[in-house]
Parts: sequence; structure tokens; C-alpha cells
Amino acid sequence: MSSGSDRVVDASKLERYAAEIFERAGIPRTEADRVGDALVSADARGMTSHGVMRIPMYLKKVQAGGFKSATKGKVLRETAATMVIDGEDGLGQVLTWRAMEEAIAKARKVGAGIVGVTRSNHYGEGAYYALQAIHAGMIGILTTNGSANTPPHGGRTVVAGNLPLTVGVPADQELPILLDMAMCASSKGRIAYAAKKGERIPEGWAVDADGRATVDPQKVLDGGWILPIGGYKGWGMILVLDILSGVLTGGRMGTEITDLFTGDAATPQGLGHFVMAINIAAFMPVAEFKQRMDARIRSIKQAELLPGFTEILMPGERELKLERERRRNGIPLSVAVLDQIIAAGKGLGVVAPQP
Amino acid sequence: MSSGSDRVVDASKLERYAAEIFERAGIPRTEADRVGDALVSADARGMTSHGVMRIPMYLKKVQAGGFKSATKGKVLRETAATMVIDGEDGLGQVLTWRAMEEAIAKARKVGAGIVGVTRSNHYGEGAYYALQAIHAGMIGILTTNGSANTPPHGGRTVVAGNLPLTVGVPADQELPILLDMAMCASSKGRIAYAAKKGERIPEGWAVDADGRATVDPQKVLDGGWILPIGGYKGWGMILVLDILSGVLTGGRMGTEITDLFTGDAATPQGLGHFVMAINIAAFMPVAEFKQRMDARIRSIKQAELLPGFTEILMPGERELKLERERRRNGIPLSVAVLDQIIAAGKGLGVVAPQP
Repeated sequence: MSSGSDRVVDASKLERYAAEIFERAGIPRTEADRVGDALVSADARGMTSHGVMRIPMYLKKVQAGGFKSATKGKVLRETAATMVIDGEDGLGQVLTWRAMEEAIAKARKVGAGIVGVTRSNHYGEGAYYALQAIHAGMIGILTTNGSANTPPHGGRTVVAGNLPLTVGVPADQELPILLDMAMCASSKGRIAYAAKKGERIPEGWAVDADGRATVDPQKVLDGGWILPIGGYKGWGMILVLDILSGVLTGGRMGTEITDLFTGDAATPQGLGHFVMAINIAAFMPVAEFKQRMDARIRSIKQAELLPGFTEILMPGERELKLERERRRNGIPLSVAVLDQIIAAGKGLGVVAPQP
Repeated sequence: MSSGSDRVVDASKLERYAAEIFERAGIPRTEADRVGDALVSADARGMTSHGVMRIPMYLKKVQAGGFKSATKGKVLRETAATMVIDGEDGLGQVLTWRAMEEAIAKARKVGAGIVGVTRSNHYGEGAYYALQAIHAGMIGILTTNGSANTPPHGGRTVVAGNLPLTVGVPADQELPILLDMAMCASSKGRIAYAAKKGERIPEGWAVDADGRATVDPQKVLDGGWILPIGGYKGWGMILVLDILSGVLTGGRMGTEITDLFTGDAATPQGLGHFVMAINIAAFMPVAEFKQRMDARIRSIKQAELLPGFTEILMPGERELKLERERRRNGIPLSVAVLDQIIAAGKGLGVVAPQP
């Protein structure tokens, strides 16, 4: 959504601009392109929090040494259907893209591919990699661990991140399914935003420092925490994602992980990722599957609506439609974000694109 | 938990009794044993709703032809890491056990195995098959579709089941992780139970026939429905599980599926299952992984407790401890359930075990 104070920037120009900034910071061209493309794709899909607003933060990590470049990781172990990659503290986008490429290649040969990445950094929006699988006619599934901000069910000590699950599934005439969600009802960022605007938050989103339900976002920021969806169920999902991305890949776990924002910029995050591709052709002809997906999607979208709804939206539908529109008409960026990335570029001698 | 009106029955005797009933109904011995073992294991873990109380219902389906036997399914497609099995309307327990065996065998060879089953029936408690993977030193993941009882987010027409996700992960000294949960906050059964006892249900569990939040279980039974955890998030999870188990395996989808209880007994359910095994040894030595799991579990269990909690429980911990106790001391069955299965046995000339 564009507001009066937004500036609309062409997607390709923004991508080139982001990549140039990273290149000037010493990142090899192909890696800078990958990060730029991933950030701008997130903006195009309306995932602003994973978009170019991250450039200054990424730059800080790159310059301080927390994000390293010139590596796509080193293969530690490999079987026909699996691979473990030591990310060597490289760029999350570069490593995860490679991981999905390897998973797809394995799935093409043996039906399924699972790649674990260790010693990685923030990979941004998971949907970016699920779309890689979709474009290859496959189902893509991935998750990552992250810095601890959520206690276990029944506890008040944070032990794990608000972890995401991303799943991409191709369809035929219908848009692909692109589920990309974290397992808490809300993010800490949304709580902070509500506090700033003086708004209440919905019940069930979070608790105060004593673990009591609250609708006051400030009480959450003052030592409280966000809650997994469905109580022990969402917490169970977090634990499983934590095991797949962290315990199984061999890297850091739980509170050992360095936070992107509050952690020391010179310290790599030490993230683990779990990246998987399923070759649909191993189950049925891809064209048949896509038609089955279309039929399934249509049968769901035909559901009678509840009051207040105008349409049944499938996971990712809103984002993919927005992307189509924004790649045509440009991406609206707030003046504040634009100023920050222009300043970041200026410091490295890169000229900003004209809105 | 055993109450005054329960009768405690030895687990092995109960297993033998269940198997004999199925054998007398014409099911080959090995298949009857598999179903008996699965049902009694569920009872041992306190999953009463998936235990021997299902015997009369299963028998009805077997006798009417909805559940067929003498088949472990037919392989339709196979790659090194995947397999699709046509279940030929066989017994869900037999087919799913075989599917996990095949997935484990593939994982042993190539690192991971995914088996899709189509034309299957009710498989009971998912944990039973996740434990197969755990016993093989692997991570097991499975799901199934089911008869439609949940509308999509924003809708009021039921389109998909309250689908389960089951994940099993081995540990060393600690108990394995055994997450086994459906994606709605509650089951229809628990709503009916609350209505019967005149109790209110927690907010967020369900809505009335107009889609309005309610704490009155009777309003839910009168045309309302249960809600996925976290609104659109839990619904998104259901959709993904529905795609993996139903769309990808090639069988029936959504409302085409026959309900176990309300459907015609002579009609097979037409379920699809998605069964996966990940070979830990492809990622790191299994002993090292198990030690990492122990460390992770212990770090989580050390969390400071919220008021009202005496311990941080891991997924499956309560059930696995209960199983250990019940396999030693017997399984308490309510007199009502015991009477029903004794009647079922009597009709086939099988003598019930002495409590």
C-alpha cells in the first residue's frame, strides 16, 4: 500500500542499487546481486520488514565481519538425497539459494532432496526460496532457527526463536500456494509498532513480565513475550523447526545464536537452515498435479463467506498479486527508509535511483 | 488416569484379544496383530479416542467392506527416495506401518525417504509410526487427510479436516520428542464431551453456526465448527498437510473423503497419507545427534516456570511416561468401553481377557 509520503521506485533499479551498495562494500557481484534481488523481492511482496530497509543493518554486519562473503559454503556431508553445508558465516541469501538449488538437483535425481546449512546468517524472506522450488515444478519446504525470544509452554525463560515455516506448492492457472509464517501469533516488531501508535493488541498475542495475558503492548515490551499460536501446539511446532534447522545441522542452538539487531555486529549469527525439495514428478505427472491443485484451490475458494470477508484468500495470494503489480508499477518506499538507504549508498559512493 | 469405575487390563492380553477379534472377522493374522498393537499402544499412551474403543467401529467397516484386508498395498511409482502406494482400501495401520518401513529403508540407502499412500483408511494414532522411525534412529514425520469439518479462513463451508502432524525425534538419555497434534485448538469430540457435561469451552476453540466466537459447546454442535490454532496460520498448516497427504498422493480430496463415523460403512474412506523418514546419520553421527538432543531438551526444561506449572513437559513426554507405567501395571478401560468390546468379541466367539 502506498501512502502520501511514500516514494515509488522501479523494482529493477532498486535491485541494481542495493546490489551496487553491497558490491562497493566488498561483496562479489553474484552474491551482491542475490542479496539485492532477495531484499527487493520481499518489498515487492509487501514484506517490508524483510526488504531494503535491512540494507543499513546488513552493511553494518558485512563491514564489521559478522556477515562474510565470497563463499557459497563448504559441503560437509552428502548422500543421494541429503547434503550438509558449512556456511562459513557467509550471506544467508547466498547460502540458502544454493541449498535450495542442491535440494532441487537431488530431488530431480532421486525424488527428494534435503539440505541442512550450518554457520549461516539471516536469510530474509523464506518465500524467496520456496519460489525457487515452485519454478522448478517442485514443492519447497524450509525453515531456520533464530535468536531466542520465546519461552517453552509453561516457562518464562526464552529458549527458542519465533521460528518460521515456509512451504511453496505450484498450481496451474491458479497462483501457487506460498505459506510463509512464523509460529507466534505476532512478531515483536508488530508489538513495538502497536506500542508506538498507542494501540491495544488482540488477546492471545502476548503476555506481560509475569506471564499474564495482556492487550497492552507496552507491558509486553517491558519484560513480557510473544506467544506461539495455540499455546503448547505452536510451541511444539517451534521445537520441531528448531530441531530440524539447529540440532540436525550441527550448529548453534537456542540462546547461543546471535541476534541480528541486538547482537555484536562482528559476531556471525550461527544460524542453521533446513531446506527441502520434493519432486512432484516422482508422485504423478506434474501437469496432473497442477490441475489437481487448481481443483483443490477452486473448491476452497468457493466456500460461503463469513460476514466481514469478501473473498477466501489462499496463503501467499495477496503477496503474489501485490508483487505482480509492484514489478509493473514500482515499489513504494517510505521516505524514512529511502533516506536511510540513500545515506548508506552515499557513504560508499553509489548514486541512488531517481524515484 | 484410572477412575473407580475403570477395569485395569493387561496390555499384552488386550492386544491379543483385539487381534483375535479381527482375525475371526477374516483379517489375516499379521494384519490383525498390527491393528491390535496400534490400538492398544494408543490406549497405553492415554490416547483413548484412538484405542480399543474403536474396535466395534473398525469391525463394522471390515464386515461391511469399507475396510479391506489381505493387502499391504501396491507400489504405483518408485524412485530412490520416494514411493507411491495404492492402499487398495486396506487397513490404515497396515498400510502406514508399511509406508514407514519403506521410508526408513530408503532413508537408510539415500538419506531420506518419502512415501505417499492413497486409497487408505483411518491410521489411528500418528505417534505409533513416528516411533517406528525413532526406533530406527531416524526422524519420522507424517500426516494424513481426513473428512472435512473445518472451513477455510474467512469461510463457513467445511472444506478440509482437522488434520494432524506427527513428528518423532530420538534422544539419548532423555525421552524422544513425539509431537502428535491436530491443527485445530480442539476436536469435535472434546466439544461434544463438554456439551454432555454442561461445561463451557475456552474462547478461541470454536464458533457457532454464524461464525461467531462462542464458549457454549452446544452452539458449536448446532451447526458451528472448530477453529484452527492461530486463525489463518493454523488454517494454512491444514492446507499444506492436505496437499501433501491428499493432492500429492493422487487420491480423494476434501469433501470426497468418507467420514469414519457418519459415512456409509461399506464405503472405503479414500484417505491419503504422507510418510517421511530422515536418516540422522546422513547429517552427523547418530550418537552425537542424540547427545545434542539431550542438551537441547535439558536447556529447555531448565526454564523458569510460570505460576501454575510444576514442570516443562516436552511433546510426548506425558504419553511416553504413561505408556511405560501402563505396560507394567495394565491399562484402565472404562466399563462402557470394556462392555462394548466384550460384546464385539462375543459375537465372534472370542473370550475376553480377565481384568
